[in-house]
Amino acid sequence: MGVPTPKQFCPILERPLISYTLQALERVCWIKDIVVAVTGENMEAMKGIIQKYKHQRISLVEAGVTRHRSIFNGLRALAEDQPNSKLSKPEVVIIHDAVRPFVEEDVLLKVVTAAKEHGAAGAVRPLISTVISPSADGRLDHSLERARHRASEMPQAFLFDVIYEAYQQCSDYDLEFGTECLQLALKYGHVNAKLVEGSPDLWKVTYKRDLYAAESIIKERISQHICIIMDTKEDENHVGHHLEEILKNELNVMSSDFEETQRLLNMLEESNLSIFYPVVVISVYFLDYKSVHFDQKVENLMQIREYAKEVRKRNILLCGLLIYYPQDEQKLQASLREGATIITTLIKERNSGLVGQLLIA
Amino acid sequence: MGVPTPKQFCPILERPLISYTLQALERVCWIKDIVVAVTGENMEAMKGIIQKYKHQRISLVEAGVTRHRSIFNGLRALAEDQPNSKLSKPEVVIIHDAVRPFVEEDVLLKVVTAAKEHGAAGAVRPLISTVISPSADGRLDHSLERARHRASEMPQAFLFDVIYEAYQQCSDYDLEFGTECLQLALKYGHVNAKLVEGSPDLWKVTYKRDLYAAESIIKERISQHICIIMDTKEDENHVGHHLEEILKNELNVMSSDFEETQRLLNMLEESNLSIFYPVVVISVYFLDYKSVHFDQKVENLMQIREYAKEVRKRNILLCGLLIYYPQDEQKLQASLREGATIITTLIKERNSGLVGQLLIA
Repeated sequence: MGVPTPKQFCPILERPLISYTLQALERVCWIKDIVVAVTGENMEAMKGIIQKYKHQRISLVEAGVTRHRSIFNGLRALAEDQPNSKLSKPEVVIIHDAVRPFVEEDVLLKVVTAAKEHGAAGAVRPLISTVISPSADGRLDHSLERARHRASEMPQAFLFDVIYEAYQQCSDYDLEFGTECLQLALKYGHVNAKLVEGSPDLWKVTYKRDLYAAESIIKERISQHICIIMDTKEDENHVGHHLEEILKNELNVMSSDFEETQRLLNMLEESNLSIFYPVVVISVYFLDYKSVHFDQKVENLMQIREYAKEVRKRNILLCGLLIYYPQDEQKLQASLREGATIITTLIKERNSGLVGQLLIA
Repeated sequence: MGVPTPKQFCPILERPLISYTLQALERVCWIKDIVVAVTGENMEAMKGIIQKYKHQRISLVEAGVTRHRSIFNGLRALAEDQPNSKLSKPEVVIIHDAVRPFVEEDVLLKVVTAAKEHGAAGAVRPLISTVISPSADGRLDHSLERARHRASEMPQAFLFDVIYEAYQQCSDYDLEFGTECLQLALKYGHVNAKLVEGSPDLWKVTYKRDLYAAESIIKERISQHICIIMDTKEDENHVGHHLEEILKNELNVMSSDFEETQRLLNMLEESNLSIFYPVVVISVYFLDYKSVHFDQKVENLMQIREYAKEVRKRNILLCGLLIYYPQDEQKLQASLREGATIITTLIKERNSGLVGQLLIA
């Protein structure tokens, strides 16, 4: 990835990647405990993340020097019924990567159900590239038929006893150089894991481009719901309603009953929503060309700047939008379309660099 | 990908993906001809792209129903020295995918040099996931050792005679179900291709997330150079210079001699730069709090809106930025930092939704 930060701690919209993955697992009510293997040097950072984002049901164990050793440490923590431990041995255990944040309940359920029946199960995907086997001198020895192979992805699930016993029998070579848990279940537990076709979303954040992709996916998902606040008292011509109609083509609009921005912002703060994601709030004002209150209105709107700085601390991105309101029906429609484009842009980009601005359509 | 448009025609910053790939190949002066295999139904669209983006050295051939058949058609076009053809048989041919836009001259040179020596060569990458072989009933048969295999990527290069003769000997089964040109060179030409380690940038745009990633990479690359235009005549306190210093931490700033926005915009138009990428132009104005010309200045700036609409047609995104200029040194620094953040945001996001806005720092 070319950055000093371990991938799972890289920020997406200012929140570490691993927090998204934990959130995806926490949402699933039938997952009882979540054990995270963390290196000693990142332990305090991880505790901070759990506290800041209020993650639940998390236990931390010390990571090993390889992937397999870390997983083994996690399994040990679940196996040992220690007096002070809040963990107890589960029937089925899911193994997942911190860098696959888009795991859905659907595939988790599929691998767990298959693991109960077959002892082990894992998500797979079609190969994107042909896999080849090089000779010792860096030349093509043979290529594998793409259709006959699969990429092994995560999550995987196992009957706890199957995978824990496999790890206990593991050689040092396996623990050092192995990468595939399904292979351990096969080698030591004689279990042929059930393979479950997963969705493209299961991909692993590996390169910098994957961070970009993850950010875009998250932005797109959280942009699906917007709420418009408008000062409807002065909206004699229902231009607000027209704006809503235009936006509906691009976004799912929830009409709002709020009369005041302040009230919504307080509710946002109470909802904890802005802990997880930056929340975009756009205060839309309509201004009649004939209006005598022009100067006063613009001055009021300038106060948005100061207020925006304050709510920015609570991860709320506040902007003002002034829509001119001419008598000419055609020009009004053009203004509204421009306003809708600005709203869509601010919501989709979700960038803190423009908070407090008064935009004009 | 879940969209009806073929991947190679999906737009990135409003330009089709394949145009980026063609541009990457055109930049390499020692590539003589570029043959593109296009399906009949996309032929007109492809001609339009070549014309709009002024691509050079391109010949179009009809695509086949499979990858291998398309490549074979391309090779035939190069092999046949027809009287009216501007193509002639090359010594070495490169095979590349339209959906790998970030190919660099460096790796092209490596595969071509290796192909001259060994008859065939291709770029490879380490495997991201373990590759497994499923049994007929969808269970794990065995897994492959990740370190002993490679993903075969593009570009690949061949001595023309080696690959053309291989395609001529190919079975129908190969042409229908095969995916790997290196395998054909091995099977029919008895050439063990040289494998060249490629960079992560060679990845294939396959899923929607890859389009997001490609867009972010392109935005990042084109955001590396900015040019600031300022009205330096009134800049007694050299605040423009201070702004430049702040921006230098984030971007490579080229100081500008231009006195007028218009002149720069005309040069941009002549340079053809905005054919390939949306160009962001931010007109920065400094406004003294004491200034008596406040109203007039704001009115002038409002003209940006109309002008922005006009240059938008030429793919130029024009915004205005007004930086307040208080006497208090500390407040001035805060204004400048805010202005720098706004500039950075506009340049990095490169979104047309905010053109014509007057932003305030």
